[in-house]
Amino acid sequence: MDRITHPTLLLDKEKLLGNIENMRRKASVHQIELRPHFKTHQSAGVAHLFRSFGIHKATVSSLAMAQYFIHHGWDDLTVAIPHNPRETSFVNHAFSPGVRLNLLVDHPDTIEHLNQTLDHPLDAWIKIDCGQHRCGLTWDDEARAASLVQSLKRGSKLRLHGLLTHAGHSYTVQTPAEVLTVHEEQLRRMTHARDLFAALGCKDLLTSIGDTPCATLADTFSPVDEIRPGNFVFFDLDQLFRQVCSWQDIAVALACPVIGTYPDRRQLVIHGGAVHLSKEQRRGPSGTSFGKPVLLDTRGWSEPLDADLTALTQEHGTITFHKMLDPSIKIGSLIGILPIHSCLTADLFPAYLCLDGNRLTKMRANE
Amino acid sequence: MDRITHPTLLLDKEKLLGNIENMRRKASVHQIELRPHFKTHQSAGVAHLFRSFGIHKATVSSLAMAQYFIHHGWDDLTVAIPHNPRETSFVNHAFSPGVRLNLLVDHPDTIEHLNQTLDHPLDAWIKIDCGQHRCGLTWDDEARAASLVQSLKRGSKLRLHGLLTHAGHSYTVQTPAEVLTVHEEQLRRMTHARDLFAALGCKDLLTSIGDTPCATLADTFSPVDEIRPGNFVFFDLDQLFRQVCSWQDIAVALACPVIGTYPDRRQLVIHGGAVHLSKEQRRGPSGTSFGKPVLLDTRGWSEPLDADLTALTQEHGTITFHKMLDPSIKIGSLIGILPIHSCLTADLFPAYLCLDGNRLTKMRANE
Repeated sequence: MDRITHPTLLLDKEKLLGNIENMRRKASVHQIELRPHFKTHQSAGVAHLFRSFGIHKATVSSLAMAQYFIHHGWDDLTVAIPHNPRETSFVNHAFSPGVRLNLLVDHPDTIEHLNQTLDHPLDAWIKIDCGQHRCGLTWDDEARAASLVQSLKRGSKLRLHGLLTHAGHSYTVQTPAEVLTVHEEQLRRMTHARDLFAALGCKDLLTSIGDTPCATLADTFSPVDEIRPGNFVFFDLDQLFRQVCSWQDIAVALACPVIGTYPDRRQLVIHGGAVHLSKEQRRGPSGTSFGKPVLLDTRGWSEPLDADLTALTQEHGTITFHKMLDPSIKIGSLIGILPIHSCLTADLFPAYLCLDGNRLTKMRANE
Repeated sequence: MDRITHPTLLLDKEKLLGNIENMRRKASVHQIELRPHFKTHQSAGVAHLFRSFGIHKATVSSLAMAQYFIHHGWDDLTVAIPHNPRETSFVNHAFSPGVRLNLLVDHPDTIEHLNQTLDHPLDAWIKIDCGQHRCGLTWDDEARAASLVQSLKRGSKLRLHGLLTHAGHSYTVQTPAEVLTVHEEQLRRMTHARDLFAALGCKDLLTSIGDTPCATLADTFSPVDEIRPGNFVFFDLDQLFRQVCSWQDIAVALACPVIGTYPDRRQLVIHGGAVHLSKEQRRGPSGTSFGKPVLLDTRGWSEPLDADLTALTQEHGTITFHKMLDPSIKIGSLIGILPIHSCLTADLFPAYLCLDGNRLTKMRANE
């Protein structure tokens, strides 16, 4: 810890491995495929740890991310964002007989485009909207489903493999009971969608669901064949607040140097801002929080302090203690911040510093 | 535009040059130094354009950023964040007789630390809190000011050069009149602080102010010697909403491929998410906005459409049209997004694509 000079993203590998093992066991018990979403960590090193659990399929959120993981030996990837026609030449370029790239479609125009421009046949999944209203075919839209099936049949480049949904609205509810309500609804709706496609002649389609809250809390999964949670690998305050994890499960913390102390307003200022944590925030009864401070030592971090990161500008963070400023924290001390949203915090760094001193590198978006 | 395949940050160099010229002229008319904050663009290429306006001094928000610009030939930089004692060895390492690095201090412990550990004397500025309540000595705190002066006198490594403030609370007000109220208050408070230090024996200190809203709208600056605005180089929706700029002044837009159309809810989904725009948001009468869509052509972009980026996840953005979905926009079209906060959007990219096809590279935070 003494060698840390600037904001540094710490990774507790033991917690990470525990989180992976819990999800692996759940998938195994329910006999469903675990295809973890790698957008959370974006790291070949973290991905390598998944391999030791027998996991060889993954999900990514962009073709650039697919390229990174293909380069690191991953050969079965689902690109969980509706295909962007401007990147089809990239798909053709990335194609090799040993790599399986699953694409997402939800519109006849995209299907028609792929049928005309793909060099080689690929597996496609139809994105289903189970209630998030971001992307996808509405789960019970028969006319639209028929039109997608027709589009697929007009070409030979896309093999329809399954139906895929992401119940992202499980991130907007506040309690485990509400998460389970979202989950039960998505199971009913995916069953309906699967039957609808079967009636249109598409038998034996697989079904895949996506979000960490449902995958973590649920105990029934039928008719689901595959889960694609991502955030569970690190968890974060957002999941803690809705009781999807405990603080002991959170596997990343940002180590920040203290650069100012203001005891009369019970505040510290850290080098640690929006370019380190993102501006993901949570509005609670005691105001807006951009993260929770923890005490750091060589073994990791403490439970969250009775304090919040209450303001965040580009490089400065302001910590407000709710009762008393901890007098042991001085200018030059290092303090940890548990992030509101670990995916966006991780995205901002080129590497993780593990507690054993090793560094796990990752890709950077937009390179 | 046809060659853009994925989210790409566009820069309109003509607008950028116009913004620089306006601020240069203002500084010249008022005979104050313009020391622009380079945290907004973080780019040696953009910095080079400043040189053609006779600007040779700049502000940075981290020592890593100082290192980048020193490497690109900048030799007079103010590091506008309270000095982080964990990085003093970096300051010693970066020192060369030809480079002037101005450090910020607001605490006796930091001053004492620097006096003990700096290899060479450096210029220091005392950070003054004029009302933002982030960092700094409260503008009228005589006892504390005396203690800082005493600390400085106990060593020989820091030459007190001036008083520096950042009226960041000008970013929280809504109208030009309110910005000017903040500005007049900071001028009065900086006058008071300067007189207070003069009475303590520190004569002839320079005064420096920081924020874009005040620097852009104000027409009186006495007793200020230096302004350090940053955001004005690009501006953004946050400045547009408080009428600090017009939409024609906004010099950056994110080009995003359309990957989904949902006419029944008047929505488009783009590849363009929190990893491209940050989660900076603005809550207005029609809900939360993460950006405003514009139409793109080879000459740049249109005025903002009657639509907002109403939802943003890691890689997906949802655009909601308030009246009618523009029927000319289809899957595979490119649409522009004006960012809420250009500094945080720019931070996420390694380069700008200028409208003439040239690329201006930039540093990346946290490397």
